[in-house]
Amino acid sequence: MPELKALCFDVFGTVVDWRSSLITHAQALGQRKGITADWERLVDAWRAGYQPAMDRVRKGEVPWTSLDALHRGTLDRLLGEFGIASLDEADKVELNLGWHRLKGWPDSVPGLTRLKRKYIIATLSNGNVKLLVDMGKWAGLPWDTVLSAELVHRYKPDPATYRSAIEFLGDGEPGAVMMVAAHNGDLASAGSHGMQTAFVPRPEEYGPGQVRDTRPEHDFTVVAADFEALAEKLGA
Amino acid sequence: MPELKALCFDVFGTVVDWRSSLITHAQALGQRKGITADWERLVDAWRAGYQPAMDRVRKGEVPWTSLDALHRGTLDRLLGEFGIASLDEADKVELNLGWHRLKGWPDSVPGLTRLKRKYIIATLSNGNVKLLVDMGKWAGLPWDTVLSAELVHRYKPDPATYRSAIEFLGDGEPGAVMMVAAHNGDLASAGSHGMQTAFVPRPEEYGPGQVRDTRPEHDFTVVAADFEALAEKLGA
Repeated sequence: MPELKALCFDVFGTVVDWRSSLITHAQALGQRKGITADWERLVDAWRAGYQPAMDRVRKGEVPWTSLDALHRGTLDRLLGEFGIASLDEADKVELNLGWHRLKGWPDSVPGLTRLKRKYIIATLSNGNVKLLVDMGKWAGLPWDTVLSAELVHRYKPDPATYRSAIEFLGDGEPGAVMMVAAHNGDLASAGSHGMQTAFVPRPEEYGPGQVRDTRPEHDFTVVAADFEALAEKLGA
Repeated sequence: MPELKALCFDVFGTVVDWRSSLITHAQALGQRKGITADWERLVDAWRAGYQPAMDRVRKGEVPWTSLDALHRGTLDRLLGEFGIASLDEADKVELNLGWHRLKGWPDSVPGLTRLKRKYIIATLSNGNVKLLVDMGKWAGLPWDTVLSAELVHRYKPDPATYRSAIEFLGDGEPGAVMMVAAHNGDLASAGSHGMQTAFVPRPEEYGPGQVRDTRPEHDFTVVAADFEALAEKLGA
């Protein structure tokens, strides 16, 4: 393996706890507006709409659309399905901006801070650049830079996304860059392009009773319990 | 003007003092290798090769080439012209990496740190991503993210570079993004795309006797003596 220079992190689920963060934001808005709704179920349905919305872009059924716009489209559909009619435009904008305000897992900021001393640390996420930058500021994630599907107008696992990380941060050398994710599929794709891989399970990403991605299903370079353990294993 | 959300900084000259940094690096290498040369003149010639090298890419005479590779090509030519034959490959790599290790002007880190509290701060430079990320870590520049000509494979002042900043950081709204530079030409281009503009003169960028870009030549949004003064004027 060549010398490792940069770590690229999947973000939703791997670095930040989107589910509990969004539920908190939505419940607060509901309380302020006097709306009773099953916000937990709405948030789970919102996230369940994530892959189908990107699939429409991946298949070329719609032109490139940022994740902010896809999230908004799914939200508008769900508000109809849940019979929530009393939100005005500013409320919907605020609800959608909840994706910019997701809190890190307890080990995220200390682990990233430690890893940053030895390596370049960057995102490699399907979130758009502004979403990721806003989130970095909000949650205190000390990224050296933000890489995003938006830079290449292709959603992971499109090869262009992983190749952009290798070009931009690895001087074209795939093994100089490591993908860090809580999802087997993302890492298997990264590994197929020659990147190093680190699996960090997040068994509560989808709430209680999660069954997917609780353990590594491939032969990854590193498996670590959290980002502090990853820093330890990578000598940072 | 819409609400200002993000500041994009030109880097070479505007944020970092490339000339004195490179002269220091080159003199140290010369001393270590026992090579007597006019390193100041070599560094000035190296920088003088910057626009002509990019022009070959801009005109399509050569395919997209990163700034690291353009710098290396110019360096190899100059070493020949200066009759410096005793550097090995590792020395040349190190000399070229000098562009990743440029120190900020005295106000750069404190000014950026202050501006970052209120705004997104990003590069918008012809330097490639790895160069800018390495420099950020080396000089302690607290970028929220790095935007680069490399992301769009077009060198400033190509419209694609400014438009990428507007797309990625301004939600498509040109006036939400401000270009900060010590160069009239860069700002005039940014302004022509609807971006806000801040001129910060760096009258010693090119060493003693600099005549270019000592004062604003257009009607920019803001003129500030340095980044701390810019923070003051922008309420940060």
